[in-house]
Amino acid sequence: MPDTRDSNQGRFVSAQAVAERAGVSRSAVSRAFTPGASIAPATLARVREAAAALGYQVNDLARGLLANRSRLVGLVTSDADSPFRAQMIAALSLALIKRSNVPAIISIGPTADEVANASRQLLRYRAEATVFLSGSPPASLVELTRRNGQPLVLINRAETGLDSVHCDDRDGAQQAFEALRMARASRFAVVSRANPSPSLSAREHAFGEFAAASGFEVRVVRAGCADYDGGQKAARQLLASGAAPDAIFCVNDLMAFGTLDHLRGAGLRVPDDVSVIGFDDVPSAAWSSYRLTTLRQDPRRIALEVISVLDRRLADPDSPPISVHFPVELVVRETVRARR
Amino acid sequence: MPDTRDSNQGRFVSAQAVAERAGVSRSAVSRAFTPGASIAPATLARVREAAAALGYQVNDLARGLLANRSRLVGLVTSDADSPFRAQMIAALSLALIKRSNVPAIISIGPTADEVANASRQLLRYRAEATVFLSGSPPASLVELTRRNGQPLVLINRAETGLDSVHCDDRDGAQQAFEALRMARASRFAVVSRANPSPSLSAREHAFGEFAAASGFEVRVVRAGCADYDGGQKAARQLLASGAAPDAIFCVNDLMAFGTLDHLRGAGLRVPDDVSVIGFDDVPSAAWSSYRLTTLRQDPRRIALEVISVLDRRLADPDSPPISVHFPVELVVRETVRARR
Repeated sequence: MPDTRDSNQGRFVSAQAVAERAGVSRSAVSRAFTPGASIAPATLARVREAAAALGYQVNDLARGLLANRSRLVGLVTSDADSPFRAQMIAALSLALIKRSNVPAIISIGPTADEVANASRQLLRYRAEATVFLSGSPPASLVELTRRNGQPLVLINRAETGLDSVHCDDRDGAQQAFEALRMARASRFAVVSRANPSPSLSAREHAFGEFAAASGFEVRVVRAGCADYDGGQKAARQLLASGAAPDAIFCVNDLMAFGTLDHLRGAGLRVPDDVSVIGFDDVPSAAWSSYRLTTLRQDPRRIALEVISVLDRRLADPDSPPISVHFPVELVVRETVRARR
Repeated sequence: MPDTRDSNQGRFVSAQAVAERAGVSRSAVSRAFTPGASIAPATLARVREAAAALGYQVNDLARGLLANRSRLVGLVTSDADSPFRAQMIAALSLALIKRSNVPAIISIGPTADEVANASRQLLRYRAEATVFLSGSPPASLVELTRRNGQPLVLINRAETGLDSVHCDDRDGAQQAFEALRMARASRFAVVSRANPSPSLSAREHAFGEFAAASGFEVRVVRAGCADYDGGQKAARQLLASGAAPDAIFCVNDLMAFGTLDHLRGAGLRVPDDVSVIGFDDVPSAAWSSYRLTTLRQDPRRIALEVISVLDRRLADPDSPPISVHFPVELVVRETVRARR
C-alpha cells in the first residue's frame, strides 16, 4: 500500500470519500471547488457539508490542481550526472520550459532508501505528465506512476500499453557492423554492461544477428556498469582470453572510452590493430584523446519527439499507445580503420 | 511590470477582481474555493457568479497554493549538461528529494528567447526556494527571483544581501600554486575563459597574488567558453607567443583537458615539459587519457551545505545573509611533475 498521508497535513481524505458521503459524483466534488464550474446549489451545499465533516484538505485540492492543470512534468532518471543523461535532461528541460512546463527532476539514487524517497515524491506530486529517461529506474516506479493516473512517456524503454520514444537500436547496430566490415574486420566483439537494459540488449543482439547473417561470430563481454570503468573491465576480460578482436562495438560511449584506454595501455593501436565504435556521441567523443567513431542520438531531437508524444497523448487520452522511433547517425572520426 | 497573463488561459483574473464584482471580501473568494471553509450560502453564490462571469481561473488558486505549500525548489542553471553542473544537479536533486522537496530544473539556454522563457517560469511558479547553480545566469534573473519574494541560495556566486555557498577559490589557487612550485616550476600561466564568472576570476587573481608574493609573474590567457574547446584555444594562444610555460593552472577541468590535448598535439610532454592543474575533479579527470591533478569540489558536500542554508533561512527569514565556504582538496594524479 502506498502511503497516502501527507506529513504536513495529517491523514489524507479523498475526493471520492467526500463524493460518497454527499451522495454525489466524484466530478461534482471537483466542480464544487473549481471556480467557474457549473453546479446546482443543492449539490454544492451537500458537497461542502461533507467536505467539512470529513476534514477534506485543501492540499488535496492542490494535488488535484497539480494533477490536472499544473504544468509540472516529472523527469525520472538514474545516473543524472552521466554525460548522455545530462544532455537529455538539459534538452528536455529547455523544451519543456519553452512549452510553459516546469520540469521536475526525480533522481533515482542507487540505494533502496533513495528509490523509496523518489516513489514518495512520485505519489505525492501528480504532475501533468512523467517522462522516464532510461531503462534503469525499477519497473515498480513505472507501475506506480501509471497507477497514479499520469500520462507517461518512456525513452529507450518499452512497457506494454505505454507511450515511448526509442532510438533505432537495430539500425544503429547495423550501421556499426557495416562500418566495421568495411574496415575489413573479421574478429568481432561487443562490449556491454552486466545486466544490460532492454535498449542495450537490443543493440547487442542486433549486432550479433547482422554478423551471423554475414557468417561471422561475435564475442559478447558484459562487465560492470555502463561507464568508463565497466568499459575497462570488459576490455580486460576480452584481451585475457581468446584471440584479440579486430573490431569492437561498445553499447555506449563511456564504455568505449574505457575500452580504448585499456587497449592502448595493452599496447594495441587503434584503429590499426583494432577498430572501436561507440553509441550516443557525448561531447568527449570529439576530444583529441578519443576522436571516437560513434552512433549519434540527438538529445534535442529526442526532446522534441517526447514533447510531440505528450501533446498527442494529452489531446487524446484514449488513443492507443504511441511508439516513436528516431534514427541514429554514424559520426565518423578516427577509431575505425579507413577502407583500404 | 511582470507579465501576469498565462498564455494558455487568456488574461489573468485576480481574486481581488472577483471580490470587487461580487461585493465581498478577498477572503470570501478564497473561502469559496477552499474545501471545509465556512461561508454563507448567499455569499458563496455571489462569488461563484462573479468568478464565472469574469472567467476567474483555477490556475490562480493553484498558483497561491504552490506559493505557500508546494515543496518545489527551483534549480536555475546554464550549461546543465556540462559535467560539473550535471554532478551538482544530481547531488542537489537527491538531497532535495530526501528533504521531501520536488526539485524543478530551470535551464537557461544561450538565446534571449530561452532566458525570457526561464524568467516567465520563475515568475509563474513561486517555489519554496530557488538555488542558482553558477555565475552564468544573468543578474536580472537573480533580481527577478529576489523581487518575487522567494528565499534564494547562490552557489559560487555572491550578491549583496543574498545567501550563498562558495568553494574556497583562494585556498584552491594557493594549493595549485604550491603544488606547481614544489614541481620546481618557474614560468607560470593561467588558462581561463573570456568573460570569467566571479568565481573563475577569484581563482585567477588569487593565483597571481600567490605567485607575485613568491616573486613570479603569471601569464593569464582568457579564451572561449569554460569548456574543452576554450581550453584548446587558450593553450594555442599561450604557445603562439612568448616562452612556453612550465606550469599551467586551468580554472576548470574541461579547460584543462583541452589544454592537455593541445600541449600533447604540439609535442610537449606532460608533466616532463609542463605541469597542468585543473579545478572541479569531474569524472573524466580520472580517465587514463588524462589522469589530471586537480582541485576537488565535492558535489554532495555542496548539496548538503545548500540544504543547511535553506533550513536556516526558512527557520529565520529575517536573519542576516548567510555565507558558507567549503574547502577544496588537491587530488594528485599524473599531470604535475613529482618533486625531484
